[in-house]
Amino acid sequence: MGNVFIHLVMSLDGFIARHDDDSSWMFKYGSDEMAGRTMKEVGAVVLGNGGLGEGVTKDRLPYGGINVPQFVVTHHARSPLTTGGLTFTFVTEGIERAVALAKEAAGDKSVALIGASIDQQCLKAGLVDEIVIHLAPLVLGDGVRFVDHLDSQVELKREELVSTGQITSLRFSVVK
Amino acid sequence: MGNVFIHLVMSLDGFIARHDDDSSWMFKYGSDEMAGRTMKEVGAVVLGNGGLGEGVTKDRLPYGGINVPQFVVTHHARSPLTTGGLTFTFVTEGIERAVALAKEAAGDKSVALIGASIDQQCLKAGLVDEIVIHLAPLVLGDGVRFVDHLDSQVELKREELVSTGQITSLRFSVVK
Repeated sequence: MGNVFIHLVMSLDGFIARHDDDSSWMFKYGSDEMAGRTMKEVGAVVLGNGGLGEGVTKDRLPYGGINVPQFVVTHHARSPLTTGGLTFTFVTEGIERAVALAKEAAGDKSVALIGASIDQQCLKAGLVDEIVIHLAPLVLGDGVRFVDHLDSQVELKREELVSTGQITSLRFSVVK
Repeated sequence: MGNVFIHLVMSLDGFIARHDDDSSWMFKYGSDEMAGRTMKEVGAVVLGNGGLGEGVTKDRLPYGGINVPQFVVTHHARSPLTTGGLTFTFVTEGIERAVALAKEAAGDKSVALIGASIDQQCLKAGLVDEIVIHLAPLVLGDGVRFVDHLDSQVELKREELVSTGQITSLRFSVVK
């Protein structure tokens, strides 16, 4: 069974989006080999509701519209939604259940966690195996933080480092 | 004349100290070649008052007790203080004046900016030429942020990358 990882593009000051969830600033920096390889490992996605799950449209698919099962953590039960070729399953039983369902759906592949709230809940619950961060050469100054507040610290081990163009990509494992 | 740079150790989630200004967590990761080389460039230091300037003692010197002129930005005028072999000059005329005095004192060498408040004020005022960041393999979860809030973003260019042990050191220039 694959890993559960956080995958994000972050500004040097720890922001992953602007306050309006706009993350268009990140596209100017392009992608790299680690990003491409990481996407290929993904067998399922767990994401939050905010701006992604229920607000999703054919033209605005989360995480590049990667065609794998998508599990949306939400308080509101609703039937699965298929849009833009993706099927979103809404999970009301909490983050552990969503990750368990995603792991099952992913089979041998990995589960990607998307969005600050999901990332933090999973870090807190000890559900994260790895963090893949693409660091952008930018102080964003304000917005949605990768970590807003966690009760405890999480020790990491850098496993990989790729620097292509101006993006610095780091892959860490969580020390358990 | 040398550059003005921010020099800090940061957790992956953007914190440079705990809420009580404790930064002892960073010492376990050791130092690297970029850190040593950067310290040798320093000809003067500008720092804030909080926990550093007026609270300084012989046993608790800021920035490793580097023996160069130290300019403390404060609202309260006071005479220069010499302790632990360092002389602290208190500047009440604001950040621009403190940086100007430090540049003069540094001669051909560079000015290091120390502390989140000073860093942010200088970024805002366009006084920063470079940012040297030693990224620790750690999600700290809470504490004092490198950037708490800036009105505008700052574009950077990665100039150098050193990865020794578990520390990832990055040197950026500010795109002006």
